[in-house]
Amino acid sequence: MNLMLIKQVWMNGKKCDVLIEGTTISKIADSIDIPVNKTIDGRHKALIPGFANTHTHSAMTLFRGMGEDISLMKWLHEYIWPYEAKLDEEMIYWGAKLACVEMIRSGITACNDMYWYPATCRRAMEELGMRSVQSYVWIDFFERERAEAHKIKLALTHKQAAAWSELTSFSVGPHAIYSVSGDSLKWATTFAKEYGLMLHIHLAESQTEYEDCVKERGLTPTRYLYELGVLGPNVVAAHGVWLSPEDIRILGDCGVSVVHNPNSNLKLASGYKFKYDELKEAGVRICLGTDGCASSNNLDMVEAMKHAALLQKAWRRDPASMPLKELMDVASLHGYEAMGIRAGKIEEGWLADLALIDLRQPAFVPNHNFYANLIYAANGGAVDTVICNGRILMEGKKIEGEKQILEMAQQMATKLVKP
Amino acid sequence: MNLMLIKQVWMNGKKCDVLIEGTTISKIADSIDIPVNKTIDGRHKALIPGFANTHTHSAMTLFRGMGEDISLMKWLHEYIWPYEAKLDEEMIYWGAKLACVEMIRSGITACNDMYWYPATCRRAMEELGMRSVQSYVWIDFFERERAEAHKIKLALTHKQAAAWSELTSFSVGPHAIYSVSGDSLKWATTFAKEYGLMLHIHLAESQTEYEDCVKERGLTPTRYLYELGVLGPNVVAAHGVWLSPEDIRILGDCGVSVVHNPNSNLKLASGYKFKYDELKEAGVRICLGTDGCASSNNLDMVEAMKHAALLQKAWRRDPASMPLKELMDVASLHGYEAMGIRAGKIEEGWLADLALIDLRQPAFVPNHNFYANLIYAANGGAVDTVICNGRILMEGKKIEGEKQILEMAQQMATKLVKP
Repeated sequence: MNLMLIKQVWMNGKKCDVLIEGTTISKIADSIDIPVNKTIDGRHKALIPGFANTHTHSAMTLFRGMGEDISLMKWLHEYIWPYEAKLDEEMIYWGAKLACVEMIRSGITACNDMYWYPATCRRAMEELGMRSVQSYVWIDFFERERAEAHKIKLALTHKQAAAWSELTSFSVGPHAIYSVSGDSLKWATTFAKEYGLMLHIHLAESQTEYEDCVKERGLTPTRYLYELGVLGPNVVAAHGVWLSPEDIRILGDCGVSVVHNPNSNLKLASGYKFKYDELKEAGVRICLGTDGCASSNNLDMVEAMKHAALLQKAWRRDPASMPLKELMDVASLHGYEAMGIRAGKIEEGWLADLALIDLRQPAFVPNHNFYANLIYAANGGAVDTVICNGRILMEGKKIEGEKQILEMAQQMATKLVKP
Repeated sequence: MNLMLIKQVWMNGKKCDVLIEGTTISKIADSIDIPVNKTIDGRHKALIPGFANTHTHSAMTLFRGMGEDISLMKWLHEYIWPYEAKLDEEMIYWGAKLACVEMIRSGITACNDMYWYPATCRRAMEELGMRSVQSYVWIDFFERERAEAHKIKLALTHKQAAAWSELTSFSVGPHAIYSVSGDSLKWATTFAKEYGLMLHIHLAESQTEYEDCVKERGLTPTRYLYELGVLGPNVVAAHGVWLSPEDIRILGDCGVSVVHNPNSNLKLASGYKFKYDELKEAGVRICLGTDGCASSNNLDMVEAMKHAALLQKAWRRDPASMPLKELMDVASLHGYEAMGIRAGKIEEGWLADLALIDLRQPAFVPNHNFYANLIYAANGGAVDTVICNGRILMEGKKIEGEKQILEMAQQMATKLVKP
């Protein structure tokens, strides 16, 4: 079995050695001296759990920087939808690869992805060694024929997913309440329950979504999903910006995981008053995501932690809100829990999904408070080395094949915008 | 005269050569071929003006990460003030040097600094080749004796500043309306006018400052400064978060420069509704700052641009607010104008204060929109090479002497917190 040793790395205020056997952290001690296949010099580095990017659309990296500073509707009608219609499988493959490189660079070891061609996105991620949950995206715009076609294709993709490696799992991805019919939502829920799958959905992202739902159905979006029977512990709901106190209670009672995406919410002006304290109080598992690069422009989870914390402090007018000690769990452990993966903690017996931070840079001087330095002063660029499932994905800021990926992704994007 | 040539660098959509003679940009053309002392390979790089960090307290890098997630009053009383009382000149020197390294790393070529020992901060900055305006900080807490002592010391420091190099200028820094008496503010204003100096002050940072002033004086902070005769084109006012419509008119009419510090405002929960559109409409010159590391944790102007833009979009609920094309001027040209320095534009005859961005990283792929990639996707870590006053301060991400500076700054910070 492959043995890897991280020597003398800084962790929670002291230096230690960390042994990885195969895919798993097997021993943490002051000093470990056994023959191993690979040793990583941990001096001047800190060890943290890898991040779980719990809501993204990976291949949308190809849209980065398209249609900036315009309203949501103009952005959708003039950029996103016309160009999405031109996407082919090759473009999606290289877009997802670009996303992987970028995610690995900021210490992300797992992501909850939602995009077309999930099997292709899976292949891109596995080739770079990343974990992911790949959702089958379901949009039917309330048309029965589309819904019927989805049922067949979803079942087929699910069958094929049985051959996927341990790095990837399959989930059901009904897009949102305004793009999927109630019957389809019920069908997808039943399917997910039957096969023990996660259900990944956008929920309560914008005020329009909330108000339209109340007007049309007399129910908030959350209450509507509850009445349909969708909500349960297998549900990962992205955004959750527009929630009533009753909605928050429902989400807590049903064991739903909610993914906060501060960058996207800010940039699209969807709303910035994410109710962290109230959701936590209700027992909701709160995770963090970058969303796709079409809206948030990057996939940097350190930046997402920073924005989440700064926003809570600002809108609540309370600098004590969303403290540092909770942020790492939100960005790592909670996302892993939502995806059903035993990682996000550096403990013996847990999966070796890890990131090493380079401390020899201005943001980490002085060393009064490591987590404050990482989250408030640094950014994803501080990550030096990334390990996922016991395998090195980046070492000394080098990722194998990165140059070719950047070139191919650029080619695909150029092809995409060609008239 | 020293000749430097940047070959084939990307600038505003095309490749060009840029010639620097001495301190100045002397020629920009498709191709320049003359013998020079130094050539910089501009391929895979973009050229931008260096950033002007128009409000900071450089040596407060030593406080980075101290007293996180606590209320402003607790932070001041338990951390900032007790530790500031322990600061000596050596600590300030190394704190300012650490700040310089960090600023240069994110492309900052000039800063408007306000801290104790301005001559020491100046020395630190000049040794690393950075431009700065150093303010004499004046806090008298309405005590006449302190005010008299300041008058003598300010005049003395001003005399000594005559020997400073062209990189540094001296300014008057009455701290704020709640820490400086009205008489002192008038005296400082007269002194600044007599010697043609900039006046650097905190203004309308918190709601408390605003409401206390209205209660005590029946005037808003801005109106109070106006009545004292303080406001004029030489005034650089940091923050300006709490402003009435009349305040905004006054600031515009008097030609005041206002410095937005989004990170600090968010972190300290001072207020996030900076009135960018209204201030611009009133003709106010809007600049950008990082504030000190005690509150904002880093000195990254790319991050500051990002936060400024995202916040405007979010609180106004308008994704079109504070568009990309205005952000670079806010972060560079306007700050330079406020400090009276002819830089912040890449044009023949302008000072060579420049930064080169490394485009071979995920944030710059695809290349649909360079400024969107720089501001929304990247961060200060994208800066590869920095030139100030025609001299190279960083090349290929290397700054001479950085290792020693980080070590010495750490030593000083350790000494600072020792019981």
